[in-house]
Amino acid sequence: MSETKVYLLDGGSLVIDGFHMYWNRGPAGDVRFPCYSVLVDHPDGKFLFDTGYERAHVEKVLPFEKPIQSHEQTIPGQLALLGIRPEEITHIVNSHFHFDHCGGNKFCANATTVCHKRELRAAKHPQPFEHLGYSDLSFLGQREVAKTSPAGQEQIGTATARFELIDGDQEIAKGLWLFETPGHTAGHYSLMVELSGRRPMLFPADAVCSHRNLEMNCICSFHLDPAASIQSMERLKELVEKHDAEFFYSHDPDSYPAYKKAPAFYS
Amino acid sequence: MSETKVYLLDGGSLVIDGFHMYWNRGPAGDVRFPCYSVLVDHPDGKFLFDTGYERAHVEKVLPFEKPIQSHEQTIPGQLALLGIRPEEITHIVNSHFHFDHCGGNKFCANATTVCHKRELRAAKHPQPFEHLGYSDLSFLGQREVAKTSPAGQEQIGTATARFELIDGDQEIAKGLWLFETPGHTAGHYSLMVELSGRRPMLFPADAVCSHRNLEMNCICSFHLDPAASIQSMERLKELVEKHDAEFFYSHDPDSYPAYKKAPAFYS
Repeated sequence: MSETKVYLLDGGSLVIDGFHMYWNRGPAGDVRFPCYSVLVDHPDGKFLFDTGYERAHVEKVLPFEKPIQSHEQTIPGQLALLGIRPEEITHIVNSHFHFDHCGGNKFCANATTVCHKRELRAAKHPQPFEHLGYSDLSFLGQREVAKTSPAGQEQIGTATARFELIDGDQEIAKGLWLFETPGHTAGHYSLMVELSGRRPMLFPADAVCSHRNLEMNCICSFHLDPAASIQSMERLKELVEKHDAEFFYSHDPDSYPAYKKAPAFYS
Repeated sequence: MSETKVYLLDGGSLVIDGFHMYWNRGPAGDVRFPCYSVLVDHPDGKFLFDTGYERAHVEKVLPFEKPIQSHEQTIPGQLALLGIRPEEITHIVNSHFHFDHCGGNKFCANATTVCHKRELRAAKHPQPFEHLGYSDLSFLGQREVAKTSPAGQEQIGTATARFELIDGDQEIAKGLWLFETPGHTAGHYSLMVELSGRRPMLFPADAVCSHRNLEMNCICSFHLDPAASIQSMERLKELVEKHDAEFFYSHDPDSYPAYKKAPAFYS
């Protein structure tokens, strides 16, 4: 049985204001931050935790976030670095359905989409202030996808997203833990991956965007329930301590350069 | 029996970023906005709805809000325009206890402080992101106050704030309505005043800071529960329609110049 490997798939970057990154604290001014997805190559399947943003969507709907993303920084482009085709992904796990975490779902025609049951409802019925966050619903529906036939020829097919709606904390595969961390959105999940050769990796997604959010005890300005967000951040600090885990922040301009990116991996 | 009169007591101005005034919408950049209190001279008493900020507090704790406030723009200064002494105020009604709404409570030695019971608890036990909002707790405790004796001599006395904690919608005096409008804070109240000579005046306090917040269906960036804030804004729109009332926004740079200020009044 093969060992679990964790790949960080670079997804380019976006820009928001400092008052968005650090709610009401700032300082003001453009902050360019990274986006990435996490591929867990596990004996039970290939799990993709979040799928980044689609550049065309951002350019159309949120051009002020100034996307920088090469073709290699898309999900197909990143998987190609590993010799993996998108249709080999067995599960997508979305921390939440903000556009910068689900834009690449559409490429993985055979994946089951795992998410919190409250999150799917929230994405379909957003609060007025969540419309931009939940602006890319391409993960939901039937769509055309490129499929590679056994003979290697590209075909255009259609696929409908299959959802597995869950709640509570869950060990979805051996050593793959989802922890409920609501507040940023209604049904937000964080992921912890236990590995044989190192401390567990804890991906808080947007419950803790950066180390500075943690230090300042300051959430980001995009949220549904700030009091719950603060509680979730507290919970994650306790989990890191309890499991001797290491945080891998979702959008940290300072920490990201030191992370290993695919094709390198953690194991 | 005298007629009810409503005086708007100018309290100077402060500055916040456009991303604070219009949550995640902006545009960025300094916005200078007015602060004012509302004196309702009513047959049953002199009711003061909110009391503005204390300049010394802002200069010390939030200097980045760049206060501009003359002595005449303090509560004693404004009341003096009307020939009223602060100790004649019978009731202070605080929409909420953010520093820019309760800084002048301390001057009204004989007033009973009316507020929502959840608001007092919230001010004493704020969320981490509410510490600056609830930074002026001078309304709470015992303090030295200048009292004018019947003979007209000034004395220094002490007073302890007396609270009347309420919840639900309340007609606290004839034609003086408090409506629960939570979200901005835990126990936020809006005030409606019915008058004999004009449409009711609706003071939404920070449930609707400005006309543009209403137009954009966009709350301000200081809040405890944004979904509740949106509901409160919706509720206020319905109340205005139901009572054929007129909004008087709490911090609207565009609407404020046209409002009558003390010593002029509405009746």
